[in-house]
Amino acid sequence: MTVFITGVAGFVGTNLAQAMLARGRRVAGVDNLCRGSTRNLAVVLENPGFEFQAVDAADLDAYRSALTALHRRSPIAEIWHLAANSDIPAGIADPGVDLRDTFMTTFNTLLLMKELGIGTIVFSSSSAVYGDHGDRTLDEDAGPLLPISNYGAMKLASEAAISAALESYLKSAYIFRFPNVIGVPATHGVIADFVRKLRATPDQLEVLGDGTQRKSYLHVEELVDAMLYIRAHAADRLNYFNIGAADEGVTVRFIAETVVERVAHGAHIRFGRGNKGWVGDVPRFSYSIAKLLGLGWRPKLSSADAIRRAVDQIAGQEPAR
Amino acid sequence: MTVFITGVAGFVGTNLAQAMLARGRRVAGVDNLCRGSTRNLAVVLENPGFEFQAVDAADLDAYRSALTALHRRSPIAEIWHLAANSDIPAGIADPGVDLRDTFMTTFNTLLLMKELGIGTIVFSSSSAVYGDHGDRTLDEDAGPLLPISNYGAMKLASEAAISAALESYLKSAYIFRFPNVIGVPATHGVIADFVRKLRATPDQLEVLGDGTQRKSYLHVEELVDAMLYIRAHAADRLNYFNIGAADEGVTVRFIAETVVERVAHGAHIRFGRGNKGWVGDVPRFSYSIAKLLGLGWRPKLSSADAIRRAVDQIAGQEPAR
Repeated sequence: MTVFITGVAGFVGTNLAQAMLARGRRVAGVDNLCRGSTRNLAVVLENPGFEFQAVDAADLDAYRSALTALHRRSPIAEIWHLAANSDIPAGIADPGVDLRDTFMTTFNTLLLMKELGIGTIVFSSSSAVYGDHGDRTLDEDAGPLLPISNYGAMKLASEAAISAALESYLKSAYIFRFPNVIGVPATHGVIADFVRKLRATPDQLEVLGDGTQRKSYLHVEELVDAMLYIRAHAADRLNYFNIGAADEGVTVRFIAETVVERVAHGAHIRFGRGNKGWVGDVPRFSYSIAKLLGLGWRPKLSSADAIRRAVDQIAGQEPAR
Repeated sequence: MTVFITGVAGFVGTNLAQAMLARGRRVAGVDNLCRGSTRNLAVVLENPGFEFQAVDAADLDAYRSALTALHRRSPIAEIWHLAANSDIPAGIADPGVDLRDTFMTTFNTLLLMKELGIGTIVFSSSSAVYGDHGDRTLDEDAGPLLPISNYGAMKLASEAAISAALESYLKSAYIFRFPNVIGVPATHGVIADFVRKLRATPDQLEVLGDGTQRKSYLHVEELVDAMLYIRAHAADRLNYFNIGAADEGVTVRFIAETVVERVAHGAHIRFGRGNKGWVGDVPRFSYSIAKLLGLGWRPKLSSADAIRRAVDQIAGQEPAR
């Protein structure tokens, strides 16, 4: 049986495909190569257990053709649906981006699972479904859910559609609410931004916001490990988990200082005003992973360790000019 | 300034337009006339303060043309977005129905509000956003939100999109989570079903489920009163309220007996099995209106009174054969 991954050429998809192949699974996947790239997939494309097609899951006809043909050749046991817009500000400027890339990819995936009788979905949701709750610690059952970005809104819409599908034709579902995930291959995000800025102007780093914004970070290798662990150990019809670091996180100031030290030692850091980087950004949140800890998984790296590791990897990935 | 209503020819829309016109407001509205009908609008079409266009809010181009032209002629102060699929089983058979009629109508409404600079949305959401929580009493901040119908999923998706829009360009939003609403003009729902069945076979009434399913009901006249009350008295940026009866509700058995007594006295009632009428139906829920009571509004009718009144009205509306 084959595991199918949407968004397989993206940041998390690439890492997930590698980990599954390493565990001896057959993996097939699609990506629209809008943010993902086949360069990311180089390490897995040579593996005979891996099959890739450049297909946009938001394009129902193309997606149906590809998935149906594949399912006939090699039955698909479950779909790991990771395809989404990952550029939150882009989705705020144009709500059509998240409608299409974050929600319609989910809607189409569910529709095809119904048509083809594929029973299990594993979905990469987001802490962005919660919205801004200040200092409150958010467990999986927290309400109300009032996302402040279209990205968060369309992730919540996707969760809702999965929940409804479970009532009529899906067999089981795994919903993972991701924290801030870092690592390589990095295409966007705060670390890659800082590295690029410092490569352009090595004497100073401009930071949006006042640097006091605090978030927890998980390294992508640990994220993938947690996803596979939950898939193997949780057996409810609907399994929904926060995945994240076990600490209170680090500030933007800490990240800026870590990048400066590694990439452009001595550069001056200039902070902006306010504790929001951009519209739709949640300034701070505290995220409970008690449910995941209760299942027996625990991250090995702290947020600070994960940042240090990712800064090293991203600095190595982004060539100095 | 004009108030704009989507789904204006529907069950709630018709009643809302009447109430607003009675208060001296100018009202314009659209409806795709798929479930609503101009016959419903007969009482308001003659009012010079009312303007109707047969436009589908899911069709962005047509909706944009109509709304833009109207807004130029007579500036729109706020949009009351009621357009939605109201046939939950239809949306379970084909998820495209709720995607289009329940969600895309919201998405398009928000998009046009952004384009035209209309700042306030009033949205008819649903208790279906909560899902099945057994005996737990659900206040507005309850979580998790795990709808079990596509209708509920697309209402939650709409709430999420509104919440995100508030962060960037909307000025204020009112989200009303409707209970089961009854009254006239009834196009669907348990009372209209029972009346039609009894008109066809006056000696017996077949009921889906065992009749123990208990729900609270609000009469549409009270619903409209509550909506207008909240709009006038709540002044947060986001105002989200359960609207409902102040009691624990009545059973399906009570409704069946009330309809039989009014329409076909002595008919035999045959119950089915289980306490769910159809897939996606929430068998029982308890819904807190404490927040609404706190604002100073209270329903005048109990669920039982509302049922009796609606049965009389619907029996009068549905001609005997």
